[in-house]
Amino acid sequence: MKNNQFAFIPTEHNQIINELIDTRFLTPKTKKVTDPVMLWRQFLVKFFIEHQGLSTRIHKLENLMATKNKNANDYTLHNKLVSKTAFYNVGLQLLGYQVDLDFELDHPIKFMHDQHLMVANMDEKLTCDNLIDAWYVLLNSRTKQGPLLIDYLASQGYYAQYFSDSILKKPLIFNGKTQAVFDTSKLIYDVVYVETDLDTDQDGKRDLVKVEVIRPKETEDGLKVPTLYTASPYNQGTNDEAGEKMMHNVNRPISVKPATDNLEFTQESLPKSPEPRAINGSTSVAEASFSQPQSYSLNDYFLARGFAVVYCAGIGTKSSGGFRTTGSQAETRSTTAVIEWLNGKRTAFTNHTDNIEIKAFWSNHHVGMTGKSYLGTLATAAATTGVDGLKACIVEAGISNWYNYYRENGLVVAPGGFQGEDADVLAEETFSRQLNAGDYLPLKDKWIQQLKRITAGQDRESGNYNSFWQNRNYLPDVKNIQADMLIVHGLNDTNVKPIHANQLWNALKSTTTTQKMILHQGQHIYINNLLSLDFNDIANVWLTNKLLDIENHANDVLPDVLVQDNTQEATWNIYNDWDNFQDKKVINLNDPKFNNHNDLEEFSDQLDDENFKIYTNSYEQWHHDLVNNNSPLDNHVIRLITQPISQERLIDGTIQLNLSAKVNSDHGLISVAIVDYGIKNALETTPSILDPKGLPLGFRWKNDDLKEFKFQKHPVDYKIITNGHINLQNLKNSYEVNSVTKDQFMQVNLAMQPTFYRLLSGHQLGIIIYATDFEYTLRGNEALTYTINMSNSQITLPIHKNDKN
Amino acid sequence: MKNNQFAFIPTEHNQIINELIDTRFLTPKTKKVTDPVMLWRQFLVKFFIEHQGLSTRIHKLENLMATKNKNANDYTLHNKLVSKTAFYNVGLQLLGYQVDLDFELDHPIKFMHDQHLMVANMDEKLTCDNLIDAWYVLLNSRTKQGPLLIDYLASQGYYAQYFSDSILKKPLIFNGKTQAVFDTSKLIYDVVYVETDLDTDQDGKRDLVKVEVIRPKETEDGLKVPTLYTASPYNQGTNDEAGEKMMHNVNRPISVKPATDNLEFTQESLPKSPEPRAINGSTSVAEASFSQPQSYSLNDYFLARGFAVVYCAGIGTKSSGGFRTTGSQAETRSTTAVIEWLNGKRTAFTNHTDNIEIKAFWSNHHVGMTGKSYLGTLATAAATTGVDGLKACIVEAGISNWYNYYRENGLVVAPGGFQGEDADVLAEETFSRQLNAGDYLPLKDKWIQQLKRITAGQDRESGNYNSFWQNRNYLPDVKNIQADMLIVHGLNDTNVKPIHANQLWNALKSTTTTQKMILHQGQHIYINNLLSLDFNDIANVWLTNKLLDIENHANDVLPDVLVQDNTQEATWNIYNDWDNFQDKKVINLNDPKFNNHNDLEEFSDQLDDENFKIYTNSYEQWHHDLVNNNSPLDNHVIRLITQPISQERLIDGTIQLNLSAKVNSDHGLISVAIVDYGIKNALETTPSILDPKGLPLGFRWKNDDLKEFKFQKHPVDYKIITNGHINLQNLKNSYEVNSVTKDQFMQVNLAMQPTFYRLLSGHQLGIIIYATDFEYTLRGNEALTYTINMSNSQITLPIHKNDKN
Repeated sequence: MKNNQFAFIPTEHNQIINELIDTRFLTPKTKKVTDPVMLWRQFLVKFFIEHQGLSTRIHKLENLMATKNKNANDYTLHNKLVSKTAFYNVGLQLLGYQVDLDFELDHPIKFMHDQHLMVANMDEKLTCDNLIDAWYVLLNSRTKQGPLLIDYLASQGYYAQYFSDSILKKPLIFNGKTQAVFDTSKLIYDVVYVETDLDTDQDGKRDLVKVEVIRPKETEDGLKVPTLYTASPYNQGTNDEAGEKMMHNVNRPISVKPATDNLEFTQESLPKSPEPRAINGSTSVAEASFSQPQSYSLNDYFLARGFAVVYCAGIGTKSSGGFRTTGSQAETRSTTAVIEWLNGKRTAFTNHTDNIEIKAFWSNHHVGMTGKSYLGTLATAAATTGVDGLKACIVEAGISNWYNYYRENGLVVAPGGFQGEDADVLAEETFSRQLNAGDYLPLKDKWIQQLKRITAGQDRESGNYNSFWQNRNYLPDVKNIQADMLIVHGLNDTNVKPIHANQLWNALKSTTTTQKMILHQGQHIYINNLLSLDFNDIANVWLTNKLLDIENHANDVLPDVLVQDNTQEATWNIYNDWDNFQDKKVINLNDPKFNNHNDLEEFSDQLDDENFKIYTNSYEQWHHDLVNNNSPLDNHVIRLITQPISQERLIDGTIQLNLSAKVNSDHGLISVAIVDYGIKNALETTPSILDPKGLPLGFRWKNDDLKEFKFQKHPVDYKIITNGHINLQNLKNSYEVNSVTKDQFMQVNLAMQPTFYRLLSGHQLGIIIYATDFEYTLRGNEALTYTINMSNSQITLPIHKNDKN
Repeated sequence: MKNNQFAFIPTEHNQIINELIDTRFLTPKTKKVTDPVMLWRQFLVKFFIEHQGLSTRIHKLENLMATKNKNANDYTLHNKLVSKTAFYNVGLQLLGYQVDLDFELDHPIKFMHDQHLMVANMDEKLTCDNLIDAWYVLLNSRTKQGPLLIDYLASQGYYAQYFSDSILKKPLIFNGKTQAVFDTSKLIYDVVYVETDLDTDQDGKRDLVKVEVIRPKETEDGLKVPTLYTASPYNQGTNDEAGEKMMHNVNRPISVKPATDNLEFTQESLPKSPEPRAINGSTSVAEASFSQPQSYSLNDYFLARGFAVVYCAGIGTKSSGGFRTTGSQAETRSTTAVIEWLNGKRTAFTNHTDNIEIKAFWSNHHVGMTGKSYLGTLATAAATTGVDGLKACIVEAGISNWYNYYRENGLVVAPGGFQGEDADVLAEETFSRQLNAGDYLPLKDKWIQQLKRITAGQDRESGNYNSFWQNRNYLPDVKNIQADMLIVHGLNDTNVKPIHANQLWNALKSTTTTQKMILHQGQHIYINNLLSLDFNDIANVWLTNKLLDIENHANDVLPDVLVQDNTQEATWNIYNDWDNFQDKKVINLNDPKFNNHNDLEEFSDQLDDENFKIYTNSYEQWHHDLVNNNSPLDNHVIRLITQPISQERLIDGTIQLNLSAKVNSDHGLISVAIVDYGIKNALETTPSILDPKGLPLGFRWKNDDLKEFKFQKHPVDYKIITNGHINLQNLKNSYEVNSVTKDQFMQVNLAMQPTFYRLLSGHQLGIIIYATDFEYTLRGNEALTYTINMSNSQITLPIHKNDKN
């Protein structure tokens, strides 16, 4: 695997000296050394941690080969100069590369170039200045196992040896990144209850939300620290069984809707807020603590680096007040209430009853939000309020519009893997106040009413966009965002689909905030533990800049758009933008480059009971049969497949279909899947574990599993790149309803999920047109026959402009 | 899932009072409470951790329902008595069960009986004594999430609240189990180097082995603690790539061997040992430390409970001296050297060079060994020396005779999943001195010679048992074992097969040590994180008894043989013994109950190239085709299948085949697989993760994934129960070689891997007779035709005696 590194900050020599002094590699004594050999020896001896005995460290030097015949101890005792080759022979071994297995002692530099490792500028015989620069670059290079060498050293106790002396700066910045110089065994764990403005359960009292705080011991002595805040409705527990029971039946037809062009949306009216609690005193000592959160390893990484981390599950969760609302403005306001507290502008109490105030006296008032899925969603939601103090978000696989999560173009369309789920089910699942019987039973009737309101509001009957969804759409408020946004999304995320990242990304362009994006080839996953990407370092540069106000050139150094290549393992490409700079390539669907040349193609949606049952039980089987000729679906889909393409194409953005279609009924839906035929090696969408617990996040602190996207073990012969679905009664948009006239052609404009996909030459592009999507749509299995007029139908491909035509 | 609990110690009322005082549930004050309601309230308020504010704790009482209408706070404030129902309503909620979802507030006791939860003896209206006993039993009951309630409490900080006051006994024993009262954030991590008697790399100096020690802070103040010692050749790293390259080709025929009856085995001669190093001084402060070991979560569990844990990778591993030998007596002696140091009878040094001695001054001289696979193997190896100080072992999936690991009845037979591996490959893989180029390169030539000796000794050509294997067979020395042995093995372990546990178990019967056994339905896995088994508690009772000399009746309370049922989820049955108390049921293979009635059956071993290739690439496909009629293997195997059996049978031990067989050549092999046909639900052999990191091992300490064996998602229609393989030139035993006469019948006695398998009524038993086993044997693909005379062939089934005939 080649090295990828995007978070290295180019640094001037004088600054390097200062930083090496701060990290104690240079001292007043070693700074004056004029013999490069002695300086190198000093560095190496320090590398093996000064609090260990010198004999132990010298033995470790003997374990490193400097040349074919001399180990690093002998070399630094007896040689008169440091050769570039010797320096990097040893350097590579420090980085975890093995002699003979990985590289040869005669050719370390060649290996480093091949491996995309950084080689510092230097003479063949190193001067002291060369050595200082090279040592600095080496410490900030990634090891074979992933972490930066300095982070590996930290995990071995390099900084910990100074914990008891308190002689390190806190925070300590090295190459623009805050260092693991905080003793995680001394972290303080507080529980507080933030008072929101809301009374969503209408008990006459403002909803309190439970907040779990983890902060460095040093905050007790006056240190002010930034906060990473993860709003996770899941982290106080969930009601999986109750949610499972509420899942909606999807084996039913879509409904015929009355035509309408009603465009009025009403704003959510929040229940009237009672007066705030009268404050009865104040304290700086929390009354309650907690043992361990369901933690997110990126947050844990930053706990070792002096950030506070807070978790809040929000209204309606265990030990909080209020009701779950699934993404409403009330939920957003309960989310920002915590930021307001961290920013000194809202009250929190030590418990539910005594009204003793407790301030976030340790907060530097700078907050960053993190988390994936619902957690990332709430980061986006909070940001769209423009709340003061929220400086940056890392939004991973976040929802930007809940309509796009449970609906698509007037259809009920499930998040992948959750057929039958809806906003009401999610509310029930996350209403963890149920886990406390004494809290829940008195509220039960009111909660059932609340659920009924959500069920009515979401309106599975019509599938239309309406006020309920409008109040759960963050996009209109993106204009308010003040926080800098790092968006992370999987191009193969079928749960929170890529449209969420795409819409947020595009909407942000009209703001003045900094926006960055990482698109990976994964499903609905975290990527902060990949070997092929320095994600933690990127996050560190980002948050050190935004929350600690350190000028580390984050905005310039970090790539604007980083995209994992779909055709190779461990390859990440830098782009300026996504879904921009395209050549639109329009192809008529009766173009001779397709295998089918009929002007009219028709298919029937209805399956026999046996196949219907098989497909409801195995999406894998359904995918296979959807895509491949000579399957039971042959007469139930239209498959258009191009000739092998002569030249690689990079699809950058949203593929559009314009179909001339009719159906033998007053209702219907069209689905389209775009397929890469001819592919052999497809990346897995869930990374494999390379080394369980192989990624240390600090010294004797938590470890994450080290992972990587590998090619799937067995070769494939197709890959579904993207898809889209539309209700034929929503040709204009998702809220206006047209009638469908039986057997009359309509023009259907359908956008696929946006993507960033490299289609290699020799591959064939497939367009599969069908109706029922077993994985996503309702499955009415009706006797509907669809006809497409190919001569009036087109596909529009967005081809990245740098590609030749 | 029903509750399983095997490590509860029945305890007298007076002892209960003492233990509740020790754990601070009873104090001089509360002991005098005469009102059961007030006593219960005291217990509950203490449950929510005294160092939290009273308001917080009362709020938590309000969250618990005591009756349908009253929460626990109201109940204990206003009621005059404690009803059994109220006590257990609250108790069940404390155990993590949910009102309405799991049980009804009207019927807690019924639920507890159904769930196999312990209900204490008591009146309907609890007396104070009732309440004390019931509270004690509740604290020692398993929660819905697995851990005992007291361990859950410990993970929430119950004991930690007293850490700074130092008022808890250390160790603290509660219900026979040592408690998590040690502060893991203050553990001490030392590295020392134990001097062995060996010089396996013949460098003229005794081999030092690196030992990593983790011990409680309290040992600095004089506390003597027991040690869990895990000898793991893997834990300093491995050479996977080099090992992979050395894998032997298995697509080759077995060799024809000259007939021989040579029975002489020569004892391994260890290289002459140099003089011990001259001791140059002594210290009690280690010079080197380490950050985190590749840890085993059972050991981590005990670190929170005041045991020291030491890891040693042994001779030939990174930072140690010597060479790898794969299971030889030298390796055993390097393993016991560490025990001798822990027992005060051997020297360790602070580093490789200075000869400063460091004693295990903190050790109570009692050592237990733990670990799985090679790690468990070395526990057995050490035990067979009778070394002083080794008091107990928990041997998980350990090898008891290396011949049975790489060979079977004169054949090269691989450990499952490792076709082509052998003793030499394992030596290379674990020779982690290679990871230090400076250490390895000067030794390289000598190491290559050492590998050659192992390759020659293992003798893949003949596959015979010889002196090499005799020196790696621990069974003859089981008679020396002094340590009490808890053997844990998977009945579906295809890597270290069940014969290893079986042979050790049976050999132990002639010793005076205590022997216990747990047989699970897993592959080659650890089982200390299952929801359905209180393994950690069993281990705790075991080691508290053996290493802390606490009389907790471990030998009486713990089951002798605990076997996971193969026909139901989460079910464990207690037996007195394994492979004993059998009725031998002999069936002729021409019995009319089989589907086939020919007297002579023949098959050819040779496959066409295509199928040969398919099977080498997919054992799954090969298993399928082996077992099922109408497959490409139809003419390459004999399949005998009984009628559906009318009555359930419990196969307990070793199935024997006696086959009258001939082959059209001078060499050949016979394999037999025994199959359960008619099975629908088969347990997975690798447990599923129920809750990632859901199993806390202490307070803010490590967490294990909570797992369970579930039924496989998709129904199956067969399961291979066991198998066996034999070289036709080894009819008598694995070291004497007979010649094979072409086309002449021989009587072949072949033992299957021992098992413990419940064959349900209605199922059919299958006997598959074949030659090449793609998963295990060499794959010569020769044109060999085998004939079995069914009328002279029998199967002998060991049926557990309690079963009706």
